[in-house]
Amino acid sequence: MKRENRKVPAGGTVKIGKKQHEKPAKSLKTAKAAKPAQNRPRGEKQDKKTLKIRFLGGVGEIGKNMTALEYGKDIIIIDAGLTFPSENMPGVDLVIPDVAYLAQNKSKIRGIVITHGHEDHIGGLPYILQDISAPVFGTKLTLTLIENKLKERKINDAVLNCIKPNSVVKLGCFSVEFINVNHSIAGAVALSITTPVGVVFHSGDFKIDYTPVSGEVIDLTRISEIGKKGVLLLMAESTNVEREGFTMSESVVKETLEHVFSDNASRRLIIATFASNVHRLQQILDLAKKYKRKVAFSGRSMINIAEAAEKIGELKIPDNLIVDVEKTGSFKDGQIVIVSTGTQGEPMSALTRMASGEFNKVKIGNNDTVVISASVIPGNEKMIYGVINNLYRLGAEVIYESLEPIHVSGHALKGELRTLHALVKPKFFIPVHGEYRHLKKHAGLAEEMGMKPHNIVIAEIGDTVETDGKNIKLGEKFPAGSRFVDGVGIDGADSFVLRDRIHLSEDGLLVAVVAVEELSATLSSVEIVSKGLMMTENTVAEAKAALSNTLKQVDMRALRDETELSSIIRRSLRNYVFKATKKNPMIIPIVMVV
Amino acid sequence: MKRENRKVPAGGTVKIGKKQHEKPAKSLKTAKAAKPAQNRPRGEKQDKKTLKIRFLGGVGEIGKNMTALEYGKDIIIIDAGLTFPSENMPGVDLVIPDVAYLAQNKSKIRGIVITHGHEDHIGGLPYILQDISAPVFGTKLTLTLIENKLKERKINDAVLNCIKPNSVVKLGCFSVEFINVNHSIAGAVALSITTPVGVVFHSGDFKIDYTPVSGEVIDLTRISEIGKKGVLLLMAESTNVEREGFTMSESVVKETLEHVFSDNASRRLIIATFASNVHRLQQILDLAKKYKRKVAFSGRSMINIAEAAEKIGELKIPDNLIVDVEKTGSFKDGQIVIVSTGTQGEPMSALTRMASGEFNKVKIGNNDTVVISASVIPGNEKMIYGVINNLYRLGAEVIYESLEPIHVSGHALKGELRTLHALVKPKFFIPVHGEYRHLKKHAGLAEEMGMKPHNIVIAEIGDTVETDGKNIKLGEKFPAGSRFVDGVGIDGADSFVLRDRIHLSEDGLLVAVVAVEELSATLSSVEIVSKGLMMTENTVAEAKAALSNTLKQVDMRALRDETELSSIIRRSLRNYVFKATKKNPMIIPIVMVV
Repeated sequence: MKRENRKVPAGGTVKIGKKQHEKPAKSLKTAKAAKPAQNRPRGEKQDKKTLKIRFLGGVGEIGKNMTALEYGKDIIIIDAGLTFPSENMPGVDLVIPDVAYLAQNKSKIRGIVITHGHEDHIGGLPYILQDISAPVFGTKLTLTLIENKLKERKINDAVLNCIKPNSVVKLGCFSVEFINVNHSIAGAVALSITTPVGVVFHSGDFKIDYTPVSGEVIDLTRISEIGKKGVLLLMAESTNVEREGFTMSESVVKETLEHVFSDNASRRLIIATFASNVHRLQQILDLAKKYKRKVAFSGRSMINIAEAAEKIGELKIPDNLIVDVEKTGSFKDGQIVIVSTGTQGEPMSALTRMASGEFNKVKIGNNDTVVISASVIPGNEKMIYGVINNLYRLGAEVIYESLEPIHVSGHALKGELRTLHALVKPKFFIPVHGEYRHLKKHAGLAEEMGMKPHNIVIAEIGDTVETDGKNIKLGEKFPAGSRFVDGVGIDGADSFVLRDRIHLSEDGLLVAVVAVEELSATLSSVEIVSKGLMMTENTVAEAKAALSNTLKQVDMRALRDETELSSIIRRSLRNYVFKATKKNPMIIPIVMVV
Repeated sequence: MKRENRKVPAGGTVKIGKKQHEKPAKSLKTAKAAKPAQNRPRGEKQDKKTLKIRFLGGVGEIGKNMTALEYGKDIIIIDAGLTFPSENMPGVDLVIPDVAYLAQNKSKIRGIVITHGHEDHIGGLPYILQDISAPVFGTKLTLTLIENKLKERKINDAVLNCIKPNSVVKLGCFSVEFINVNHSIAGAVALSITTPVGVVFHSGDFKIDYTPVSGEVIDLTRISEIGKKGVLLLMAESTNVEREGFTMSESVVKETLEHVFSDNASRRLIIATFASNVHRLQQILDLAKKYKRKVAFSGRSMINIAEAAEKIGELKIPDNLIVDVEKTGSFKDGQIVIVSTGTQGEPMSALTRMASGEFNKVKIGNNDTVVISASVIPGNEKMIYGVINNLYRLGAEVIYESLEPIHVSGHALKGELRTLHALVKPKFFIPVHGEYRHLKKHAGLAEEMGMKPHNIVIAEIGDTVETDGKNIKLGEKFPAGSRFVDGVGIDGADSFVLRDRIHLSEDGLLVAVVAVEELSATLSSVEIVSKGLMMTENTVAEAKAALSNTLKQVDMRALRDETELSSIIRRSLRNYVFKATKKNPMIIPIVMVV
């Protein structure tokens, strides 16, 4: 593998085209027989007996997907995602997998294989590539989105390899075939990974869409061929395992959108959608052309991704269709559709600012119809409904998922999951991409289809699943978990900082500065400052007086050190403040010897 | 009205029985002709022309319902609820309506009428009764729940008046009739309020349940009589206005629960439900008896409310059914059902502690089936699914709403709302009990049924709606909003404290103590403490050095006061820290002159 000539030129584009790794599916036979790489150091002890599947993220949670397959001296990584912080992580920007184990085993890593370009599959890459170095493999759109991220973080030495569905890549003792699947982003693939102990099939995120609006139907033919030849282990996503039936086709959205365009002829349309859902974007562009509207993109990521997707041919933008959002005022309302970010009510997004009247380029009014063409990601309910309420307050009509079929899920429902299991016919099964309840239900679904419980393993982050091809079992634990990206810092092991932040946010703080005169060892002065506490000036003054009284009774010379004095200050204030406010603020004693 | 003899005895029970206000429905005729109270001060200017409906809470939000009806010198209040704090209110315990307007008009208040005993209708009472004083009217269970709350807050002088459905209460110029409705709590009523300008019908929270498991079907006959006589204004709840059809009957839950009991004969059952849903509780008790299981209540509020409901006859507990939760270990699993709090994943609730293995009295294992018989209140998704995941991790089976019809909504769906509108046939309509989008959709539903848009008013908190019986319009704004209950304090006007808390939680803080020698006006020492910031010791030391350097160049004698020095400290540190961490921590400069 020549890693040098795959470097992303600084500020440039990834070269896309036929690469050495793009091989037709038939080369899988060769791949199966693949010998371990020749450049492996001799004499090292090799544990060739078992394949180890190590879960770094994406099990027991929906988010930061990352799995490593390890056999002997070879490791490959599937996906490298991020999670957005939850309420108990105030001030945190992003959460990424802890890759300490991989950093310790850098030399083994043969490649990072990415199933598709969503944040929970690629978002960790810019950070993780600081700790480990390996070539990245993905389809065209996936790499384009990764490249955007790497540029933002000024990472210029990553090696990105573009692959096509049906191609096969050899990575050490592994051989990875990419298989086209349907999902809410273009270029999504499943993986069929031939390992020395058998074939591992990884579904990636998928659905079965028999009538996609663009792109191909999921490659069920190839999946059934692979299944027929024999699959050792299936890893399949579990997001929608609680829902019976089959997901609706993207074509359903097309119908709804067509109605929206035809029913709102004289009104301005504002459509919020995920920028990365280029098929959805394509539909909107096509409808705009049909209904003679100009399209204005709004929101930085929308503009960036639309441009990038057009450049690689994933998005076809008709000529003379796009106008700058600032120019939309010179058109009639019925001649404009604004395509915007902000489907999740993100505070800084274009749609959220429009709804709160803070977006100067687009002022919402009675003649606007706003379409939110996405579903609510659990946890974002309050934010997005806040946006919807505000849009109504400004007089707009709003069309959103609980009212119209304006979005379809990108994740397989129970029916599709059963189809996959039936085609792949695996010996073993590990449910992935789900909270624990999803994994459990997915295990149940496999059992209902006849799989023996001892052939199913539910794994969590930090678990290693081992198989020698005959049996499968939960193996050793390895160090894994979350790292917080916070400002410029990445925090690893401890969460003291977060604990302090939560404490501060719930109970506020009290700073007590006590100056002690060095020579006489007597109290010189006491100062108290309170923040985030509902304390009146009076209460603060009383607390100060109480503390002064306590300290006057202390024999400063008898104290061993300042820590002892700090404890006295803390105890005195804690008791006083709890009585006065029923709160336990953080107390910061600062002793100054003057 | 003799207020004295309705006082709640300290620590005692409300006397419940036939009171002077309990009159059959026919007395409504008398009420209609009611003259204004005789004891009104003469000579005061009276604005008798319009009825003013003042919204103190519960519109533009789901929570803290509170509405005042004002006519001339009379005010009555409908409900006095609370809201639980959202993520942007860290450390806040409860949110209650700001009743400044009512406090200023204390002497006008004739009574507080409560529709039912849910927190968002009664939870504000203990706090609001500190600012205003008025007799409270409600049904048996409602008053029992209120009484519990008042006891907790040690309020002993409240006047609670028990009413029955169909009874009428005269309150100044208003006459209030209580009408039985179905809801997810016993004793829920709608209100038909005769005012000098016409009848105002308030739905309260309601659904139509033709086959309730206990209690009566909603009194559609009486509602249609009232509608036939003529209703000026309908105020109706909007919670489920986005859902087509009719809510399922409580009987559906009965069927599911029966299956749970019969399918799990040898397993221990743990059922979480709202303590106040006594009909649900009754079903569980009856099934326990039928299937020969003992019942153990778990969680303080479950025990308190079950006891209180039994005492007033709302809950019938079969003999020898109840055992202490600590004694359940001496029974076989199949002989026990534990009824628990914690349906919303509340951190301190019994179920949450069971799920995290921290509840010594009940250890969850493979032979447990946990039923969560409630729906997720929006915003609580992460917490409750966290509990469900943990229960599965411990090996339990879990039955919850997305899998089984184990809960039915207590709020009318579109079909029921249409039924209500059709029966009440109001002239005017104000949608209530909903976020703005719900109110808007409910207005749309009324329009679809033929109501003219100018006869519908969407109001928000602080709005007054005025009607003289001929027209309806949005009138003056009055001071209203939220008050935060935080520890022992109630914070009114400003939200500085909350802003500080949020700032602290996102960016942490830096305390800089600078000691200046008074005589020489020179810098004596600098101390820096950082909390909630991802700063290494090194960075803190560097910040300290940078600040010292800056301060050494300052001519202390030239400064006007300490504030000026504080500004210099703040500026210096802010710049340094932002460069180092990309964070803007709260900076607390403390200048000590020594």
